[in-house]
Amino acid sequence: MIQECIAELKSLLGVDRIITTASELKRRSHDLSYHEHHAPHAVIVVESEHHVCLVLKTCNKYKVPVIAVAGATSLEGHTIPTITHGAIILDLTSMDKVMDVHAEDLDCVVQPGVGWVDLKEHLEPLGLFFPPDPGAAACVGGMCGTNCSGTFAWRYGTMKDNVLSLRVALPDGTVVTTRRRATKSSAGYDLTRLFVGSEGTLGVITQATLRLRRIPKFTAVVMAQFQTLKHAGDAVAKVVHDGLILNRMELMDAHTIQSINISITDPAKQYRQFPTILFECAGSSQSTITEQFAALKEITGPVEASSPKGCVGFHAASSESESELLWHLRKRAYFAAKDLRKDDKLTSHSMSILTTDVAVPISHIVETLTLSRQDLDHHGLTGSIVAHAGDGNLHVFLVIDATNPKEVADAQAFRDRNARMALQFGGTCSGEHGIGIGKIHLLSEEVGVEAIELMRKIKSVVDPNGIMNPGKVFELKSNL
Amino acid sequence: MIQECIAELKSLLGVDRIITTASELKRRSHDLSYHEHHAPHAVIVVESEHHVCLVLKTCNKYKVPVIAVAGATSLEGHTIPTITHGAIILDLTSMDKVMDVHAEDLDCVVQPGVGWVDLKEHLEPLGLFFPPDPGAAACVGGMCGTNCSGTFAWRYGTMKDNVLSLRVALPDGTVVTTRRRATKSSAGYDLTRLFVGSEGTLGVITQATLRLRRIPKFTAVVMAQFQTLKHAGDAVAKVVHDGLILNRMELMDAHTIQSINISITDPAKQYRQFPTILFECAGSSQSTITEQFAALKEITGPVEASSPKGCVGFHAASSESESELLWHLRKRAYFAAKDLRKDDKLTSHSMSILTTDVAVPISHIVETLTLSRQDLDHHGLTGSIVAHAGDGNLHVFLVIDATNPKEVADAQAFRDRNARMALQFGGTCSGEHGIGIGKIHLLSEEVGVEAIELMRKIKSVVDPNGIMNPGKVFELKSNL
Repeated sequence: MIQECIAELKSLLGVDRIITTASELKRRSHDLSYHEHHAPHAVIVVESEHHVCLVLKTCNKYKVPVIAVAGATSLEGHTIPTITHGAIILDLTSMDKVMDVHAEDLDCVVQPGVGWVDLKEHLEPLGLFFPPDPGAAACVGGMCGTNCSGTFAWRYGTMKDNVLSLRVALPDGTVVTTRRRATKSSAGYDLTRLFVGSEGTLGVITQATLRLRRIPKFTAVVMAQFQTLKHAGDAVAKVVHDGLILNRMELMDAHTIQSINISITDPAKQYRQFPTILFECAGSSQSTITEQFAALKEITGPVEASSPKGCVGFHAASSESESELLWHLRKRAYFAAKDLRKDDKLTSHSMSILTTDVAVPISHIVETLTLSRQDLDHHGLTGSIVAHAGDGNLHVFLVIDATNPKEVADAQAFRDRNARMALQFGGTCSGEHGIGIGKIHLLSEEVGVEAIELMRKIKSVVDPNGIMNPGKVFELKSNL
Repeated sequence: MIQECIAELKSLLGVDRIITTASELKRRSHDLSYHEHHAPHAVIVVESEHHVCLVLKTCNKYKVPVIAVAGATSLEGHTIPTITHGAIILDLTSMDKVMDVHAEDLDCVVQPGVGWVDLKEHLEPLGLFFPPDPGAAACVGGMCGTNCSGTFAWRYGTMKDNVLSLRVALPDGTVVTTRRRATKSSAGYDLTRLFVGSEGTLGVITQATLRLRRIPKFTAVVMAQFQTLKHAGDAVAKVVHDGLILNRMELMDAHTIQSINISITDPAKQYRQFPTILFECAGSSQSTITEQFAALKEITGPVEASSPKGCVGFHAASSESESELLWHLRKRAYFAAKDLRKDDKLTSHSMSILTTDVAVPISHIVETLTLSRQDLDHHGLTGSIVAHAGDGNLHVFLVIDATNPKEVADAQAFRDRNARMALQFGGTCSGEHGIGIGKIHLLSEEVGVEAIELMRKIKSVVDPNGIMNPGKVFELKSNL
């Protein structure tokens, strides 16, 4: 059936759009994560919604699974065909146009292959930005798929809050427009948010209307350091509790700072290895910034060894370039983690990262931070911890040898313990990366079999042949 | 079948919980709107999720439609059985407990019959509030159903943004928990937002976890008045465009002020009848307020007859009680509209209001305001206009004699013209009231038959017997 399907696609789209060379299939066999590689049957390069519909209709006819891919930066195996199902890859990277910017309405219309970094550059001259900021190569289609977020989500919300409307091609080739452009709507079922976060299992996003924000006139970054993770977590919880409105609040543990320092050759430029919070203040005037600084200072307490609040450093970035450097370091934390095992002589091929993604109610941020670190240390695992702190969303970056089954299993066991701890606190196993292939069992524990069964029913009626990214989020068939 | 169903419910729940007296059925035959009254077969008073499940299972077995009702303040006929389908009413008013307040996490857990006004009083001593503020008697269950919002939505979002998780009883009596309490989640399909805004057509909400906010330390209200609706609309668009962050921004046209003045007997206390905006500034310090005042003053321009910005009044409320009075007047606008036809000698029984609910991208707020007023005047219709201005969401309150078919038809024709204008501007026919029974044709024009068909498919798999509030949002059967 697969060969017939591919042959038909070649006749419909032209042979040039159908790639089946071994090297290219191998290149497409993985995402950014530790998940086992598995090559697709073919890669179909499309340039229009019409192309997408042709591919879906054909694959639906032959019951051949389809995975829509643009940035391929998933951390949960979303773009990898499962061994059970196999799949062709629908390559959306050529659908990379910013179609429209309605500056006065604070929205824009883009194709799924637009990268958020490119969009950022496109919008900056207009004084506008789109808040979600996941991995640098991520594109809007996948960002919708996983309901990603990033460092601005605490202030501006996740993709759910920043996607106004979608055009989505369904498996039978029908195209649905989920909504119009008004920022508010109570018009029928919320199809937009059904597709956002559905991880490519319901349809292919062919166009997205995104909500934009005005770049704040004034911003300023404070780097605060603390004696312990508990002290840092307490500061975070207090900021949230007090309703202090900042632009960002990102936490890094001492191991993250250590990992960042490894590649800084000049010892004078290295950072002190303490749990660290980057606060970004923002507002329409310098006095707002001054006020936020004062409120932060009050919360973190005096910088002295004996302070009960444990603040050992409170440094305001003195220039825009220093602020940028600090954010750059935070953004580098994921890849920097690998340097923690620089001496293990792992190859770049075998060294990988398993990242957790729990989010907990803010009153549990301290326990979640400290217990995560204790668990790492207790099991002798190498990892650093960062947190989108205002959202109670933590990532533990476990550095592993992905070719060593024991290391993978140990890291997965940590991930499961960590998620179950979050569930006990009323939290979730995924704050922003999605479920993919690695956390199917955890989702079931989190929301219960009744909710999974309802998701499965919705899937069955939208995608009756189960061709859309099967084996992700939940198994197609119930084990009940 | 209905009599058998009612008999079985009596045996399951006790006869006292099943009300079939004519007077009570008559009382339950309408909502707050102009929609035609139609009595239910029975009213079932429930006190627990267990009761809800028993009712749903029984009704599902006999295929008897069910409408869950608490506040019954819908403006779109949601709680009225349709003539085609009939229904029993599931009365949730006894499920009115605030189960838990997690003050440190800024969330609370409530039953569906909790009124937002009661919740407000419950939360105030803790310095917290829940932003959505629809009609005073509205309860959380219905607020979820319609995805309501109100005066705070521009700043804090709608119900979609403020409901963290739901427990929902499905037609077969299964209970689904949609999510946990963490503020951020990418864990599976967004069942929460599928139910929020589904207008009771998919299941019955038995518990909601709501996101709370801290009451701002400082607030201050400015009443600005303008020569024309265009001037007022321009000011609104500029505030949004500049990214000025206020607590609220509500617009009332001159007819609204006129309607409010009618019941103010002391001429000295009446307001000048100009298009008016109430701005609410908020922040953690007095200096923030001062800054927001200055920014507003810059936008509205000088108060003088010749100003191109048309501002004819800029008055800061001098006390908390004056601020409260101004908000009270705004909140009274809906009922005050009826005074515009005080001299028509309509009975309180026959006089009713048809309200529109369009929302448009903010660049079209001026046209939408001015064309709505022109249309009213051109057709000799009596009505006032208010707007949740920051969201581009307008309500035209058309005062009609609901017993006069021509007046109803004329008002409905206005509603349709108004909605179609909004659609042309990329807007929606419903910003916050939902579709109910009156706007089914408009929803279809707005999102297209493909989207309606998808909603219908989802409905069919969640509620295969079509017992949940049938005949609302869309017709169960396609006319294709």
